[in-house]
Amino acid sequence: MTGFELDSRLAADTHLVARWGLSEVLLMDDARFPWLILVPRVPGVTEWFDLGEGERGTLLNETLLLGKAVQAFFNAEKINTAALGNVVSQLHVHVVARYSSDHAWPAPVWGSGTAEPYDTGSLTSTIDRLRLELPQL
Amino acid sequence: MTGFELDSRLAADTHLVARWGLSEVLLMDDARFPWLILVPRVPGVTEWFDLGEGERGTLLNETLLLGKAVQAFFNAEKINTAALGNVVSQLHVHVVARYSSDHAWPAPVWGSGTAEPYDTGSLTSTIDRLRLELPQL
Repeated sequence: MTGFELDSRLAADTHLVARWGLSEVLLMDDARFPWLILVPRVPGVTEWFDLGEGERGTLLNETLLLGKAVQAFFNAEKINTAALGNVVSQLHVHVVARYSSDHAWPAPVWGSGTAEPYDTGSLTSTIDRLRLELPQL
Repeated sequence: MTGFELDSRLAADTHLVARWGLSEVLLMDDARFPWLILVPRVPGVTEWFDLGEGERGTLLNETLLLGKAVQAFFNAEKINTAALGNVVSQLHVHVVARYSSDHAWPAPVWGSGTAEPYDTGSLTSTIDRLRLELPQL
C-alpha cells in the first residue's frame, strides 16, 4: 500500500513482530500484559467499517488468528479484542491476553496504571519466540 | 439456534432492540453513553474465534453495520468496538458511541463509574427510534 505510515505514538509504544498480508503485528512494550496490536497498512482509515469489503474480512481473519495464537502462546484465560481509537485515531486492533490474576482484571487494560517496559532480555526473547510461533500470513 | 440463553447479567443490564440474523441487538441501560451490544445466539461460545467460519464473518458484518448505524444515529466522534468478556464470558460485542466530551473520554467505558439508567421516557424513545432506523438483518 502506498502512503501508509505507522502513527508516531504506536511506533513509540510498540515493537514490530511481523508483517502480515494486511497488517503490521506489534508488541506493546508493557510487560504487565501480553498485548499485541494489528495495524492494517491502509492510510487514512479510522473505523473498521471504513475499510474496503475485502480488507474488512482480512482484518477479521488476522485478528482471530492472532487471538487464537496469543491464547495458546501465553496460555491466556481470556482474549480481549478491541478497536478503540480514542487516543490514536489510526485504525488498530488490540489483542490482549488476560488472566484473573493480572494487574487490571476484570477492568480493561487501557488507561490502567502505567506501562512497565520489558527489560532488554525479555523483550528480545518474547519477540523471538513470537516470530517463531506465530503463523506466517 | 437451540440452547441459547442470554446471560443473566446481560439480560439485567440491557434492553432488547432487535433480533438480527445471528445476534440479539441490546441497548445497555446507561444513559451516559450510547452503548449497544451484540450477542450471537450460539450457545457456549466465549471467544470470537470459537465460532464457526460462517458465523465469524456474519458477526463481523453485524458489528460493522451496527457501528456505522450507531455512528450516524448518535452523531458519534468515534466508535469503540470490543469483545472483552472478563466479567460476562458469553461472547458479546460492545459497540459504543464516543465523544471527546463524554464522561470517560479518552478512557474506555468499561469500569468507568456507575451506570446511570435511562428514565422511562428516554428509554422508550431511544429504543423506538433505534427500531425504526437500524437496518433489518
